[in-house]
Amino acid sequence: MSVPSELNPTARFLMGPGPSDVHPRVLKAMATPLVGHLDPQFIQIMDGVKGMLRQLFRTENELTFPVSATGSAGMESCFVNLLEPGDEALVCVNGVFGNRMCDNVDRCGGKLIRVDAPWGSPVDPAQVKKALESCKPKLVAIVHAETSTGVMQPLEEISKLAHDAGALFLVDTVTSLGGTDVRVDDWGIDAVYSGTQKCLSMPPGLSPISFNPRAVEAIEKRKTKVQSWYLDISMVRKYWGGAKRAYHHTGPVSMVYALYEGLRLILEEGLEARFNRHRTNHELLRDSLEEMGFEFLVAPEYRLPMLNAVKIPEGVDDAKVRERLLNEFNIEIGAGLGDFAGKVWRIGLMGCSSTRNHVNMLLAALRQIMK
Amino acid sequence: MSVPSELNPTARFLMGPGPSDVHPRVLKAMATPLVGHLDPQFIQIMDGVKGMLRQLFRTENELTFPVSATGSAGMESCFVNLLEPGDEALVCVNGVFGNRMCDNVDRCGGKLIRVDAPWGSPVDPAQVKKALESCKPKLVAIVHAETSTGVMQPLEEISKLAHDAGALFLVDTVTSLGGTDVRVDDWGIDAVYSGTQKCLSMPPGLSPISFNPRAVEAIEKRKTKVQSWYLDISMVRKYWGGAKRAYHHTGPVSMVYALYEGLRLILEEGLEARFNRHRTNHELLRDSLEEMGFEFLVAPEYRLPMLNAVKIPEGVDDAKVRERLLNEFNIEIGAGLGDFAGKVWRIGLMGCSSTRNHVNMLLAALRQIMK
Repeated sequence: MSVPSELNPTARFLMGPGPSDVHPRVLKAMATPLVGHLDPQFIQIMDGVKGMLRQLFRTENELTFPVSATGSAGMESCFVNLLEPGDEALVCVNGVFGNRMCDNVDRCGGKLIRVDAPWGSPVDPAQVKKALESCKPKLVAIVHAETSTGVMQPLEEISKLAHDAGALFLVDTVTSLGGTDVRVDDWGIDAVYSGTQKCLSMPPGLSPISFNPRAVEAIEKRKTKVQSWYLDISMVRKYWGGAKRAYHHTGPVSMVYALYEGLRLILEEGLEARFNRHRTNHELLRDSLEEMGFEFLVAPEYRLPMLNAVKIPEGVDDAKVRERLLNEFNIEIGAGLGDFAGKVWRIGLMGCSSTRNHVNMLLAALRQIMK
Repeated sequence: MSVPSELNPTARFLMGPGPSDVHPRVLKAMATPLVGHLDPQFIQIMDGVKGMLRQLFRTENELTFPVSATGSAGMESCFVNLLEPGDEALVCVNGVFGNRMCDNVDRCGGKLIRVDAPWGSPVDPAQVKKALESCKPKLVAIVHAETSTGVMQPLEEISKLAHDAGALFLVDTVTSLGGTDVRVDDWGIDAVYSGTQKCLSMPPGLSPISFNPRAVEAIEKRKTKVQSWYLDISMVRKYWGGAKRAYHHTGPVSMVYALYEGLRLILEEGLEARFNRHRTNHELLRDSLEEMGFEFLVAPEYRLPMLNAVKIPEGVDDAKVRERLLNEFNIEIGAGLGDFAGKVWRIGLMGCSSTRNHVNMLLAALRQIMK
């Protein structure tokens, strides 16, 4: 038997697109000895998680819980449960995660209608309006915070267009939730998913989702079985909800502990205070980067506070700078994805990684490396 | 904002069908601050995990890694990647998890051939042989350790039958891996999945899988896209393997830490010593339970060492005894599933829960409750 050496990673400051730094209270929660996943004590913890997620999503939706896998599985949960083969789905695409949605529609046997906007820009409601003139989709899907480009997508106008066309409105809030306002009920979002490793500042591994009664009705009216056993909401909801819990899979107990403690931290801070903190630290980073001559990829009014995409100056070696940041300063920032590989850096200020100290450390390190 | 109280579960002794007790070193590993999922340090940890899983599965298979979700998602990974619509699949069923496999075949659009054996008995190779006379399945699937009944399924004869018929041999080792021998290469297993919360004694949340070159070839020859984006091995393997890692989803860093440390513990103990420990503690429990008048559900030669299904004596209140064990002794045992609800208890002696002290505590508590 060959046994590798002890786990001993050098601590990093996580300022990429996620995971972000995790609070010591969340790390400690994961070290809590486990109870069984059907233990009444665990069911109480599950109820606590559901209640806190509702506050975070600003929703009254009964069907609100974390999918037992990462954010991409949350995305897949929404598509496989809401779409049946042959259903039309309109997907707005302005980055990697819009493209991933299209791939999901395809794998569900759905009929895809794409509305493309340039990467780095939001989707214009006028485009959606025009597209809806020649189709009758079951859902309109869009990304609130495009992690690949740093664009914040205004949602309310497109929500109204979707509903006027009789469609469900599905939103990806993986990067936005916990770092900027996400108002599921006020904005008419019918189905929504997120991830734990961005502004929730927990380890990756769970995907909070919420479905409103319209979305639940669409699921209940299905004529075909959901193609995924693991993600079939009609079964998972009995495990997470109701008076009598029915066994489905074995819930990831320790990750649920982490989510419970992380949500407590978020609510203790208060949502408005948390969003202000994300905005303030973004402004601090932005002002200093612009002083240093960096340009942002995204126009000011559409910039995400938690994910800052900046153009790599000409003559600067992308990989080398990121490598030096990591090896000499233990700071991780993100590379460009897709079309922006080698062209932009993605600097995350998410959750516990959104502090003045993180901003100051990164700026100082960048100045020393690029001088 | 309404914030629930601090996480403060009463510690339990986990002697049900999983999760089992988790070693303090694994709990501590989960409290390790995170590095990024594309950090060279994390890639080294991923490599360590793959190498240790190969030793545990006793395989040389390059494609060996943990799926980023629980055991049921490991099951689904195998079916959605290996089956295409219209493919025949022969599934052996003698409990809940065989049934779950059938449901997976159905959701893949596969053509199901069932071979049923009575719950509590193994599947007879003669039945499989007979069924193979009138079909030409792409795969033959079977459960090694049926968690719902406590049956250990002999595999080698059925493996040979499957291969003689030109089929792939797919095995569920969720409950067996780490508690009894699983010889993937020697037994001709083409694809295999497991879970972390049974004899691996880690928290639930990952599903180790391994595919041999025949299974990989079947995936590479597919004519259709895998229906699941999250579980599509053709993409996930690039994230977990090869010289250059490609982003797919965000790996569950802390759970991978747990797996790394838990696998080190297993290899430090040694596989044979570990299997002997599981066998010895099973015998201790069995002898005492039989002395107390309990009957086992399964014939002696097919009993699992890690999952003991015993008949609930007449006149004994199932729920009340389990409730008293939990509330007065902090001991969790498992209820019967499916046909055996209310009729059997399932006593797990898995991983860190397989100790003489666990056995002694449970026996003493049962004697006091049932006196």
